[in-house]
Amino acid sequence: MTSHVTQGPEPQYDRIVSGYQTYRHASPFVCDWGGQLSEIEIAYETWGKLTPERDNAVLLLTGLSASSHAKSHPNNPQDGWWEQFIGPGLALDTDRFFVVCANLLGGCYGSTGPSSICPETGQPYGPDFPILTVRDMARAQWLLVDHLGIDCLYAAAGSSLGGMLSLQVAALAPHRVARVVSISAALRSHPQSIAMRFVQRQAVMADPDWREGRYYGESFPHTGQKVAREIGTITYRSGPEWLERFGRRRVNEGTPRLDRDFEVEAYLEHQGERFCLQYDANSYLYISKAMDLFDLLAPRPDGVEEVDAITSPALVIGVSSDLLFPVWQQRELAEHLGKRGNEVTYLEVDSPYGHDTFLIERDRIGGALQRFLADAPA
Amino acid sequence: MTSHVTQGPEPQYDRIVSGYQTYRHASPFVCDWGGQLSEIEIAYETWGKLTPERDNAVLLLTGLSASSHAKSHPNNPQDGWWEQFIGPGLALDTDRFFVVCANLLGGCYGSTGPSSICPETGQPYGPDFPILTVRDMARAQWLLVDHLGIDCLYAAAGSSLGGMLSLQVAALAPHRVARVVSISAALRSHPQSIAMRFVQRQAVMADPDWREGRYYGESFPHTGQKVAREIGTITYRSGPEWLERFGRRRVNEGTPRLDRDFEVEAYLEHQGERFCLQYDANSYLYISKAMDLFDLLAPRPDGVEEVDAITSPALVIGVSSDLLFPVWQQRELAEHLGKRGNEVTYLEVDSPYGHDTFLIERDRIGGALQRFLADAPA
Repeated sequence: MTSHVTQGPEPQYDRIVSGYQTYRHASPFVCDWGGQLSEIEIAYETWGKLTPERDNAVLLLTGLSASSHAKSHPNNPQDGWWEQFIGPGLALDTDRFFVVCANLLGGCYGSTGPSSICPETGQPYGPDFPILTVRDMARAQWLLVDHLGIDCLYAAAGSSLGGMLSLQVAALAPHRVARVVSISAALRSHPQSIAMRFVQRQAVMADPDWREGRYYGESFPHTGQKVAREIGTITYRSGPEWLERFGRRRVNEGTPRLDRDFEVEAYLEHQGERFCLQYDANSYLYISKAMDLFDLLAPRPDGVEEVDAITSPALVIGVSSDLLFPVWQQRELAEHLGKRGNEVTYLEVDSPYGHDTFLIERDRIGGALQRFLADAPA
Repeated sequence: MTSHVTQGPEPQYDRIVSGYQTYRHASPFVCDWGGQLSEIEIAYETWGKLTPERDNAVLLLTGLSASSHAKSHPNNPQDGWWEQFIGPGLALDTDRFFVVCANLLGGCYGSTGPSSICPETGQPYGPDFPILTVRDMARAQWLLVDHLGIDCLYAAAGSSLGGMLSLQVAALAPHRVARVVSISAALRSHPQSIAMRFVQRQAVMADPDWREGRYYGESFPHTGQKVAREIGTITYRSGPEWLERFGRRRVNEGTPRLDRDFEVEAYLEHQGERFCLQYDANSYLYISKAMDLFDLLAPRPDGVEEVDAITSPALVIGVSSDLLFPVWQQRELAEHLGKRGNEVTYLEVDSPYGHDTFLIERDRIGGALQRFLADAPA
C-alpha cells in the first residue's frame, strides 16, 4: 500500500519484445504539436512473404499496450497477442499476405518512446518527450512502409487504438491503402472515454515514484500504474461476461477486507500487477493522451474533415458490450464512411467480452476480417 | 502530483454538517461480520411535524457521500442535497409528512464512523473500525426510528445506496414500513459495480498519506481520494449529457498536457478536489465496501432470500443512462418484488444524466415519488 522504490533491475519485457527488426529513420521527425525527435527507431515484425509485385502487404496496427509481437515466429516463439488470427489459412493468411506489425512510436517495445535515450542529452526523454498524436504514430508507420519499399498496402487493419491508426493511415495516404479495417475504434474519442483514460493517467501521476516522469534509474510508479491498469481493465473487459465468470464470489473466507476480496477484484489486481512488469509508465501516459486527442472529424487546414480523405473500401466492426468504444460510435463511423461513398461492410458482434472481444472472438471477428480481405475489390 | 501532508486544520465539513440532532445509543452495537461498537451516535435532521398518531414519518436514506442535510432549515440554512424535493407541496411534502434523514453509520457527518473517537482507546477508530454492511446501517436507522417513538414508517425512500438501504430497512421489519421507494439502486451489487468501487478504494489506499488508515492528525490521503472521486464521478455522471456539456472542448490553449486538458477533465478534477474537503477517506472505504457486500438475494439463516421479506407496496425507479446501477438491475428488482406479490410501480426514466439523475430530474423523479406517496394504499 505504500509506494515502492524498484530494487534491482528495471522491469524486463523480454518475453514479448525480442526477435524484432528495427528501422532507424535518421532524419528529424517533427510532431503535430511542434515537438521534434532528431531521429526515430521503429521496431517491427513480419510474417509471410512479400510478393515480387509488393502488393500483398497488410499493415497490422496495435492497441495501446500491445507490442509488434502479434504472432510467434522462429526468432520469438512466444505466442503473440493475435496468435490465432495470423497464420496459414487464418484471418490474416500468411500463405497469401505479408503481414507487418510495428511497435508504436511513443511505446516501450523497441520503437522510440519516452524511455528511449535522447541522442542530444544521453538521458531518457521522460517528460521531455513531445506530446504525440495518432497522426504522428501513423506517419511513423508510413516511414516504415516506405522503408520496406511498399507503395500500396493491400490493407491497413487494427483494433482499438489500432483501428484509429488504420483509419488515420488511410486518411494520410488514401491512394496507398486498398482496404481499411477498423475494429472497436471510433472517429474520435468522446468525453466519457477521455474521462476513463484521464483517471488512469491521474493514478500514475499521483504515485510519488512517478517523480514528474523522471523516474528512470530511480524508481517505478508501480502502485499508481497498477491502479491505472485496474481501471483500464474495467473499460476493456467488463460486460455480461463478468456476471458469469466472477459473479459475487469472494476469494477470502470470513470477514471481508477493504482491499482484494471479491474474485473480480483479484482478477483486476492480477491484470494490474502483470502490466506493471510489461509497460513503461510514461509510454502509457503519452499513448493514452494521443488517443484522447484523436479526432478524424476535425477539419484539416483546407477545411476538409480528415476522415473524408479516406476512399478505401472499409470493414467496420463493433461490439455490443463495448464500454470504451460503444456501439453507437461504430455505427457513426460506418455511416460516416458510407455517406462519403465508401464501400462499407459493417458488422456488430453481440459478445459478452466488452472492448477486448477482438482478442477473443476468433471465429466471428477473424472470420469477418478474412472474408473482407478475400472479397473486397482492390 | 506528489503526496501532500495536510498542513493546519483538518478538512472542515461545517457547511454541510451543522444544525443536526444526535441520538446516542449507549449500548453495544454488534456488526454483521462480528465487530462491535460499544456505543453509537446517529446524527439526523427532520422537516415537517410528526402527527399525534405518529403515522406520517418518511425515512429518507442517503447515498454514500450525502449527509443528513437533505434540505435547508433554520439551524442550517445551507441548501441540502435534495433541496428541491423536500418542502411544502414538493415531492416529500412537509405539510403532510415528517421527514427524517440520518447520517450513515460509518460516515463522517456526525454519526459514528472510522474518524470517531473509540471510547476504549481514546483514539480515532481508523482501520480498527469493524467491517460494515448495509444491514448494519439499516439497523442503526431502526434504532433512531425507535428512539423517535415511531412504530410504523409511512415510507422508507432513498436513491443509490439510499435505495439499497430503504429496501434493507423494509426487509428487516416489513410490518413497520408501509411503502418502500428504491431509486437507482439494486437487489445486489454486480461485479462491474464492485470493480468500479474497488479501483476507487485502491486509489485511496495507494496514497502513502493514507498510512494504512492511521492518518488522523498526521496527514490526509488527498491525492488518492481525489483520484478515487474522479473515478466515482465517471460512474455517477457520465452519460449522453457529457457529449453535449463538454464535447471535446479543451481548457488549455496550445500544446496539450498530460494532466488536466479537456473540459471534462477539469470537471472531474474539480469534483475530486471538492470531495476531499468534505469527506473522510476511511468512511469512503468502509461505506463503499458495504455497498459491494450488499446482496438481498442471499439467503438468511432460515433459507429465505432477504428480499422476500419485503411486503410493502414499492416504487422502483431506474434511469436509462445509469452506468453503476444499470437499468437491467432496476427491472430485475421490480420483477422480483412483483413476483412475490408486492404491489410494484416501476418507472424507467430516459435521462442523459446517468446515475445521479435523482439529484437533477425534480419533475420526473420527484413527481413519481409524490404520486406514489399520495396514492399507494397504507
